[in-house]
Amino acid sequence: MVNPVVPSTGALTPLGLDAVRLSPGFWGDLRALNQEVIIGHCLDWMEKLGWIGNFRGESARGREFADSEVYKLLEAMSWARDPRFDELAATVVAAQESDGYLNTRWSGDRYRDFEWGHELYCYGHLIQAGVARWRTSGEHEFTDAVRRAADHVCRRFMDTGETCGHPEIEMALVELYRLTGTDRYLEMARRFVERRGTPALAEVEFGRAYFQDDMPVRDADVFRGHAVRAMYLACGTVDVAVETGDTELLAAVEAQWERTIARRTHLTGGMGSRHSGESFGDDFELPPDRAYSETCAAVGSVMLSHRLLLATGRRRYAEQAERTLYNVVAASPALDGRSFFYTNPLQVRVAGQPAEGVNPRAEGALRAPWFAVSCCPNNVARTLASLPAYLATATADGIQIHHPAAGEITHDGLELRVETGYPWDGGVAVHVVAAPAAPRRISVGEHTEERVWEPGDVVAVELDVRPRWVRPDPRVDAVRGCVAVERGPLVYCAESAAGGPSLELVQVLTGTPPREERADGVVELEVPSAALGDGVVGPLRLVPYHRWGNRGPATMRVWLPEVS
Amino acid sequence: MVNPVVPSTGALTPLGLDAVRLSPGFWGDLRALNQEVIIGHCLDWMEKLGWIGNFRGESARGREFADSEVYKLLEAMSWARDPRFDELAATVVAAQESDGYLNTRWSGDRYRDFEWGHELYCYGHLIQAGVARWRTSGEHEFTDAVRRAADHVCRRFMDTGETCGHPEIEMALVELYRLTGTDRYLEMARRFVERRGTPALAEVEFGRAYFQDDMPVRDADVFRGHAVRAMYLACGTVDVAVETGDTELLAAVEAQWERTIARRTHLTGGMGSRHSGESFGDDFELPPDRAYSETCAAVGSVMLSHRLLLATGRRRYAEQAERTLYNVVAASPALDGRSFFYTNPLQVRVAGQPAEGVNPRAEGALRAPWFAVSCCPNNVARTLASLPAYLATATADGIQIHHPAAGEITHDGLELRVETGYPWDGGVAVHVVAAPAAPRRISVGEHTEERVWEPGDVVAVELDVRPRWVRPDPRVDAVRGCVAVERGPLVYCAESAAGGPSLELVQVLTGTPPREERADGVVELEVPSAALGDGVVGPLRLVPYHRWGNRGPATMRVWLPEVS
Repeated sequence: MVNPVVPSTGALTPLGLDAVRLSPGFWGDLRALNQEVIIGHCLDWMEKLGWIGNFRGESARGREFADSEVYKLLEAMSWARDPRFDELAATVVAAQESDGYLNTRWSGDRYRDFEWGHELYCYGHLIQAGVARWRTSGEHEFTDAVRRAADHVCRRFMDTGETCGHPEIEMALVELYRLTGTDRYLEMARRFVERRGTPALAEVEFGRAYFQDDMPVRDADVFRGHAVRAMYLACGTVDVAVETGDTELLAAVEAQWERTIARRTHLTGGMGSRHSGESFGDDFELPPDRAYSETCAAVGSVMLSHRLLLATGRRRYAEQAERTLYNVVAASPALDGRSFFYTNPLQVRVAGQPAEGVNPRAEGALRAPWFAVSCCPNNVARTLASLPAYLATATADGIQIHHPAAGEITHDGLELRVETGYPWDGGVAVHVVAAPAAPRRISVGEHTEERVWEPGDVVAVELDVRPRWVRPDPRVDAVRGCVAVERGPLVYCAESAAGGPSLELVQVLTGTPPREERADGVVELEVPSAALGDGVVGPLRLVPYHRWGNRGPATMRVWLPEVS
Repeated sequence: MVNPVVPSTGALTPLGLDAVRLSPGFWGDLRALNQEVIIGHCLDWMEKLGWIGNFRGESARGREFADSEVYKLLEAMSWARDPRFDELAATVVAAQESDGYLNTRWSGDRYRDFEWGHELYCYGHLIQAGVARWRTSGEHEFTDAVRRAADHVCRRFMDTGETCGHPEIEMALVELYRLTGTDRYLEMARRFVERRGTPALAEVEFGRAYFQDDMPVRDADVFRGHAVRAMYLACGTVDVAVETGDTELLAAVEAQWERTIARRTHLTGGMGSRHSGESFGDDFELPPDRAYSETCAAVGSVMLSHRLLLATGRRRYAEQAERTLYNVVAASPALDGRSFFYTNPLQVRVAGQPAEGVNPRAEGALRAPWFAVSCCPNNVARTLASLPAYLATATADGIQIHHPAAGEITHDGLELRVETGYPWDGGVAVHVVAAPAAPRRISVGEHTEERVWEPGDVVAVELDVRPRWVRPDPRVDAVRGCVAVERGPLVYCAESAAGGPSLELVQVLTGTPPREERADGVVELEVPSAALGDGVVGPLRLVPYHRWGNRGPATMRVWLPEVS
């Protein structure tokens, strides 16, 4: 199946990229932008900066995990069936050593620094790229190289107590097991998961929680430390739990997820409250201005929620994935696909300065074309390239559409055409193009219909996309006395262009619902507001959070003080 | 004069440690604790960790700026006339190279890394220690070494464009000029100040603002970047401006100070809003939970406010120094003087874990005996050792007591004995022990009396120490809807011992003033409170912020949600 995650068991079965095809619409347009612009943008930057040259033996450039960026892009190219894959893959394969070792930074000085060296992390992304290629187009010299690398890892690490400072190898090995049926990949992944927190790594300045080595994963009750690391580890843990039938381990991750969503997740679905250590904060430490909410943590969160959805069938996992896709993943790329947010704060007090080149920092109040650490653009690319894999699932008796998007879905004799302007409109029409003679269930979110379908039948669902006021948990100190506005899956924000009125003293009146304004297919909102101090009342324009920052330097806030 | 800051001109003249002597009382007790415990504690730790051994040529230990910690302690020992000074100073002197170069980390590899090497920063602390020794007890082999080092710096850097990533050398050189009259020290300091922001340093991950190299100091309108660096640079800038008569430069720092106090300073006087880069945030970015508020930034802020007070005579500088001394500097050491806060947040949601050894991080919800970067304990030691120098000043016609403290003040024929229980009590009685035949003005804060004094006369002042509710600027988003409580110069906080009632959902009722409770000479307060949700009303105990965390693991908050 052409899908990044294909568990051998679970409540729901994924549908591959061959079964779910997107038409123009919110996600179809973004996936097209990815294939037409973003992938090439990433390729150009990594060639220019020498990160690809590293594989050609040119002088080492970029950070110690730069190889992984090339692998993420190879994964994106695989899902997108991008013709540039072969040349880039050949460059990578040529750098592999005879025993399977492959790393352009540490060659000749292997495995000296598990805390920061990222070698196993890089293999993880290499393997995921290989799985993507294999599932999309079959075996290839690149997939051979990937197996050699995975076998090298199993030989080298099966009987040691070592693991990598950055989780990632775990889910990759499980997926390679799922693809090849080779048991040692699963066993290696299981050992990496179980080793963590014994502890397996040295103390670092950020503390062992930074890389989730403070306690065994099955003993933890919440996600903590570096948010991307936490998400990737949880993904690998779910994969191991599902394949080994370890229900206790799965339940541990579910409990960690529940507490994290309730207490450590931003309204947008973004994760990470601290710039220092790119980490989760304490419970209810959710500052809008210094929200880290790294794009890659959102990618990891979507991957995790999707895995939990497949394993359990619980809708709340799909709902969290939807929130995160619309309000963090979709927020990262600019409308032109040529710049990206790395962090995704919910408040920006000082308008950013445009930067043409590489942003040396993760933060910035404007999207940047590239970063010194540039995981996010490549992670966005592979996520958008594989996006159809996340939208719908199947069971023996039907199809579940979790995220309505215009397109076609074909599975087990059922052929559906989905028409929708979601999220701008709430209407979703699922046209039956072909159907088997037996009854089938078609679900759109919470709405389900079951019968023997005939071509021409339509499942028509009206999802609620009326704008609504949202109030925070009173324990989130940083947004006390504030409200936010949501409409369907979208979080909205006030955006004030440079030179425009300040958002510093704005307050909103919540007695009436926000008013909708449509322009170019996008729904903006207006709410009554008053500037604190001068009492002047006027409408405040809100834009979907994922679209902010596309009109030049601006300040922004999601949480708006309420006139009391 | 036995004082760390002796400007050649200014509105007010400092009084030395020989003119101001502390008796038992708030500051007298803390200074005694410093001499009896803290200085020895620092000495023991630096010997144990090898930071002193570095000077004996033992294998390099500690961070690249560890030399400076030894120098800060030598400065503390000088002001305290500690007999252990000689041995430690001799160890340092023995490590000096023949041309005056002295650095245990970079010897043989000099001046390769101005961004992070800290060589000039270390000289700055060396020179300040030398000035302290010289002014306290006269010249010494150590002060000779200090002059050789300063001369080496002038030879090496007078005509280059280089400067250090961490300001500190500037104020040290000005003070050495003030002590010796050697013009080149002042000129070297002036050049270091003017070079900064041209720019003089390379771009770093945190941006050039991190070390105030983003613009010339005279063009800035607010303090920014690493808070300790910003304070130390501003101190050196004031010193240069005063000695060169550069009123424009002095006015620039005054304007930066005003905006920073109004928009970037915590209620406690603490500076620094971000852990990342240990830096100031944007205007009004003042999170209580992630307040960095480094102890050393507070030390720098007191040094700066004191310099501006001497230069201008404006009371608001003394007021800010008082706020910072009582609520950050005094908060750092534990009551037993054997552990310290590095960061001083205004809210702690999760009680800390006791740690016996070296804290690898700056943060922590409990004081730690020592840190991997341990600037703060030594900085506290030198500040407490020289504290009398900050408490009072003189003019031709009298004495100004800025910070009432029990003790004796002698200057120009006027001999005063100050009796006070401040800050616990508001009463201050200044007894005249001896006086000249001419009229003199005696000031206690805003209260001034002028006449021909007779022995036995008393200036009795009653300062207002009634508890008061304080509300934040509405632009400080992080504490919207909250109040704090102050009493005299003290900020109060709620402290909840582990196992006690949670502060998570606490709200306070502000209809009545806080009620005072005295115990062991300390004034605690009680305010009516209600737990959000359950409606149960009861008294909430508040303790002076500087005393929190002395009763074991606890949560804490300064800003308390107000029942609306």
